[in-house]
Amino acid sequence: MTEPVHDLAHLGRVELLTPDLDASVGFFVEVLGMDEVERVRDSAFLRAWGDYERASLQVTAADRPGVGTISWRATSEAALARRVDAVEASGRGEGWSSGSAGHGRTFGFRDPDGHRMALYFESRYHEAAGDRAPALKNQPERMSTRGVGVRRLDHVNVWCRDIDDNASYMIETLGFRVSEQVVGDDGRLVGSWLHVTPKSYDLAYGRVDPAGVGGRLHHVAFAVDAREYVMRAADVFLDEGVRIECGPAKHAVQQTCFLYAFEPGGNRIEIITDGRLLLAPDRPPVTWTIEERMRGQAWGTLMPESWFTYATPPVET
Amino acid sequence: MTEPVHDLAHLGRVELLTPDLDASVGFFVEVLGMDEVERVRDSAFLRAWGDYERASLQVTAADRPGVGTISWRATSEAALARRVDAVEASGRGEGWSSGSAGHGRTFGFRDPDGHRMALYFESRYHEAAGDRAPALKNQPERMSTRGVGVRRLDHVNVWCRDIDDNASYMIETLGFRVSEQVVGDDGRLVGSWLHVTPKSYDLAYGRVDPAGVGGRLHHVAFAVDAREYVMRAADVFLDEGVRIECGPAKHAVQQTCFLYAFEPGGNRIEIITDGRLLLAPDRPPVTWTIEERMRGQAWGTLMPESWFTYATPPVET
Amino acid sequence: MTEPVHDLAHLGRVELLTPDLDASVGFFVEVLGMDEVERVRDSAFLRAWGDYERASLQVTAADRPGVGTISWRATSEAALARRVDAVEASGRGEGWSSGSAGHGRTFGFRDPDGHRMALYFESRYHEAAGDRAPALKNQPERMSTRGVGVRRLDHVNVWCRDIDDNASYMIETLGFRVSEQVVGDDGRLVGSWLHVTPKSYDLAYGRVDPAGVGGRLHHVAFAVDAREYVMRAADVFLDEGVRIECGPAKHAVQQTCFLYAFEPGGNRIEIITDGRLLLAPDRPPVTWTIEERMRGQAWGTLMPESWFTYATPPVET
Amino acid sequence: MTEPVHDLAHLGRVELLTPDLDASVGFFVEVLGMDEVERVRDSAFLRAWGDYERASLQVTAADRPGVGTISWRATSEAALARRVDAVEASGRGEGWSSGSAGHGRTFGFRDPDGHRMALYFESRYHEAAGDRAPALKNQPERMSTRGVGVRRLDHVNVWCRDIDDNASYMIETLGFRVSEQVVGDDGRLVGSWLHVTPKSYDLAYGRVDPAGVGGRLHHVAFAVDAREYVMRAADVFLDEGVRIECGPAKHAVQQTCFLYAFEPGGNRIEIITDGRLLLAPDRPPVTWTIEERMRGQAWGTLMPESWFTYATPPVET
Repeated sequence: MTEPVHDLAHLGRVELLTPDLDASVGFFVEVLGMDEVERVRDSAFLRAWGDYERASLQVTAADRPGVGTISWRATSEAALARRVDAVEASGRGEGWSSGSAGHGRTFGFRDPDGHRMALYFESRYHEAAGDRAPALKNQPERMSTRGVGVRRLDHVNVWCRDIDDNASYMIETLGFRVSEQVVGDDGRLVGSWLHVTPKSYDLAYGRVDPAGVGGRLHHVAFAVDAREYVMRAADVFLDEGVRIECGPAKHAVQQTCFLYAFEPGGNRIEIITDGRLLLAPDRPPVTWTIEERMRGQAWGTLMPESWFTYATPPVET
Repeated sequence: MTEPVHDLAHLGRVELLTPDLDASVGFFVEVLGMDEVERVRDSAFLRAWGDYERASLQVTAADRPGVGTISWRATSEAALARRVDAVEASGRGEGWSSGSAGHGRTFGFRDPDGHRMALYFESRYHEAAGDRAPALKNQPERMSTRGVGVRRLDHVNVWCRDIDDNASYMIETLGFRVSEQVVGDDGRLVGSWLHVTPKSYDLAYGRVDPAGVGGRLHHVAFAVDAREYVMRAADVFLDEGVRIECGPAKHAVQQTCFLYAFEPGGNRIEIITDGRLLLAPDRPPVTWTIEERMRGQAWGTLMPESWFTYATPPVET
Repeated sequence: MTEPVHDLAHLGRVELLTPDLDASVGFFVEVLGMDEVERVRDSAFLRAWGDYERASLQVTAADRPGVGTISWRATSEAALARRVDAVEASGRGEGWSSGSAGHGRTFGFRDPDGHRMALYFESRYHEAAGDRAPALKNQPERMSTRGVGVRRLDHVNVWCRDIDDNASYMIETLGFRVSEQVVGDDGRLVGSWLHVTPKSYDLAYGRVDPAGVGGRLHHVAFAVDAREYVMRAADVFLDEGVRIECGPAKHAVQQTCFLYAFEPGGNRIEIITDGRLLLAPDRPPVTWTIEERMRGQAWGTLMPESWFTYATPPVET
Repeated sequence: MTEPVHDLAHLGRVELLTPDLDASVGFFVEVLGMDEVERVRDSAFLRAWGDYERASLQVTAADRPGVGTISWRATSEAALARRVDAVEASGRGEGWSSGSAGHGRTFGFRDPDGHRMALYFESRYHEAAGDRAPALKNQPERMSTRGVGVRRLDHVNVWCRDIDDNASYMIETLGFRVSEQVVGDDGRLVGSWLHVTPKSYDLAYGRVDPAGVGGRLHHVAFAVDAREYVMRAADVFLDEGVRIECGPAKHAVQQTCFLYAFEPGGNRIEIITDGRLLLAPDRPPVTWTIEERMRGQAWGTLMPESWFTYATPPVET
């Protein structure tokens, strides 16, 4: 057995593209309760109150919604060097750039499906000051009590045309592990949940893109502390006129409590809570069949059609 | 910078000593909602419904309460070998034994203060059958709805005579990292919270033993999913006549929501929930001064004197 | 303005009919966590741990599922006499009987649709003894920690052929007040939520029976303390193989958090929590249109077809 | 048995006196999440998002903290007339005034200890408009997501020199019922919890004033929906620098989950949640002895000395 690689620490930042920058930033600030920390040209950088880094979300003006760069923090400079070498060797590297909004130098690459990703190690910790300074020094800043008040960035779920191919790439080149997966009747993956932390997933290849498009986003997820807060988020969305797609309910895969909704730019976001930790170093992936997945979510919830067909950028048909 | 070691996966099992085996087992089964899976001579082996291994708690008949062996699971056979080598080199090794209740071969040692510890890698996963088989295959068994229904073993907190010495040993020899610590006015540690998982702690050297005794236990902790369940645990304890020492309240150090009580054998147990994850690979320890600790817990809760003076085995004075 | 009548205190007991008495009682005891306190011929009498009376649920063997007698406790003997007089005057009275399982003499009647109802005042308070005696004297007995552990009977929802007619009867003859209602395009009621307590409803005429049958039951509801416990109930149902119909989610009408499932006899039960109190003495009913109701429940949840078509006894078609 | 009186509907408004009006209003708006709806001379009128009336809290500039008028809404004009007659007959009436901030004409009186109280029936319902209009028409306005976001005014707790005398007055003259009480070794009341709603208390004579002063306030309480939100309130208070006195914990008397803190004017406020309803029309009061009360709160929590000795206005010693 090859020993597991521990070179990636966690998902560090997700960049969302939006055709309406002001509305999207307004949503993340006023409704989700995040803070804008910096604006550079067409990008706003935001953070949740529990994120230790300077910015975990980049919102960038674009013609159409979708996902920009998904950034992963390495566990050390040496780890970063090892992963960059591996990516370079795979031929998918796109070179170094200076990092933005607190990130040090950053190495870009694309997964086989074309999603832009990046690796970095150097990171500026958030320093809360003034009326945002927390009462307890083991907290990055005061708890946000605006709207939903999400605690931290949790994971990203993207679609691709060949999940076997993409999951293998992330596993072999970056050191991701598979926690759960869905296998189709032809033996090929139709869903793969991958992690580098003991959270049950940090990245999901959620579905074989039914439109056959590359590089699309299903959703980006933000965590709250308990299931009650997922329900409270739905209450907030209801009052604020945010379009809820489905939930709160409980996923069968991973058992997370979920709520899906749309930010004004058209991207799907998820509010999530998950108390489970995958501490076993050798737990084999849990594999679900299509038949098992047809039973719906944990409590029998059936997802609406849009959840299976809509990703960003949307496909005109 | 030396790269961090990832050779230990998590706390695997804690052995509690009790002068009243039946009463102690009754408490863990009926009040905490755990299951007894095996009994070998004077030891009962138990598990919480969310633990993936066969047994996470060993309760052993003894003259006096206290802690027996604290077992840590390695991340691989190679990792186990590396840590055994390191322990051997430190002169604290006590040799191999065949493991019990699902554990493969196990290497024993003592920390500098004399707490018995063990390392193992091979472990039998729990297989739930019959009416304990879970509805969802990504869960070890059905949720326990008996009493508190704790989900999993969380951490162990022990006292020792020299925290600097013991914490250093666990860091250098086993690869623990420090998440938070309290430093006395003389610059020496008076508390150290150590972890091998991204949970904020798996082992705490909670206090310099005021009685100067070696190898004592402050408490062993079991996790529930949300703060509401810590309060529900207090409701259960109240009705069942369990002696509550303090809580529910929120620790300042680590911010966990806690409830302390005593099992019939005299050992202190904690019901805990903690949604925080320490995902940063380079977060420096949070260091608290004595003055800061004098302010009480997060919400100002002052702990009773027993919490500062009672550990097991108790000291006759 | 005529002053409001305060002659009924609360819903006291619901009788469910079941073709499988053992299975139904097993469900209420093992899954919902209620206690059986008495068995008389074909009827089992049960209670939830927070109910102050001896029994709040009667489960009776019958050929088919459905609802038997729905009993309302009067606020005093004088109040009972007043309401009996009013019922007698309406021509719907069915005379006195000795009460069962803790109830004193009881007066039976039928609502216009034919649902059997009863009025009583004398009632034996539950006295918990032995290991069911509570720690706090202001609690009827120890909290149940078996399965869902419902706290108390909450309300009953029945269908009828003419809601205007039935609601008027309950309002004018018994002193119920309307909290919310749905009015069809023809100006006639298609739903009416009625209460005698400041809970937002104790009795609902939930729907004009699409099959035109009389005396049918939509569901009987049991309360838990918080929304988290409605979700926990769904977790318990999942593991126990109970068929969940829909939820947890939040009703638009009344805003209660709900979970619908079926007991083994075929009757629908609801697990509910509701923190709202209608304290205003003069709040006009909230009236919803069909169009508003088409938007689904509060968070957009669409109920499955069975929820609109299935009541007990079921109609063979 | 005389039939119970139902002439008072609920606690309608509490007036707090403060030496720092701006700071006090700032606390209720920014920290508790209430809205200021009107300011008249030295008084600010505020409401919680779930209160159906225009204003449930009046904050008035004064030399010292304390309680002003405690207002009770009658169930009808006829009920108001009956209670005014009863008060007049008791010789404690202080005449009619035009009501403030949404209240119609109001009749003032003092309880035997000198607390100012008032009765009214006419009341202007809150009408939320614009971005405060709720999504669901059965809700007075959008949920407040600012700070704690309290849902509604719950109860008021005052001290007096003779609890037997004051409780009897409120029972006999106004129709209050006793839910729980503490009786001293001399057979006299040392605490009495009174209600006109099925909530377990709306008014408490909490303690025989140890300083022998008249008309003092122990606390005014605001309700949230679940125990988790009482804990969240403590998190908010911690970050905002609000002085927490004790809690969150669970009262033995009434079993409510509590959190006590001080607003900047010096008055004690309580954040509370209570899922219990006293639906029994004939439940005798639960009577506690001094010895039982010495055991502390439900989970053994011991209250700090200030809780037993501090009321407003404070007594200089």
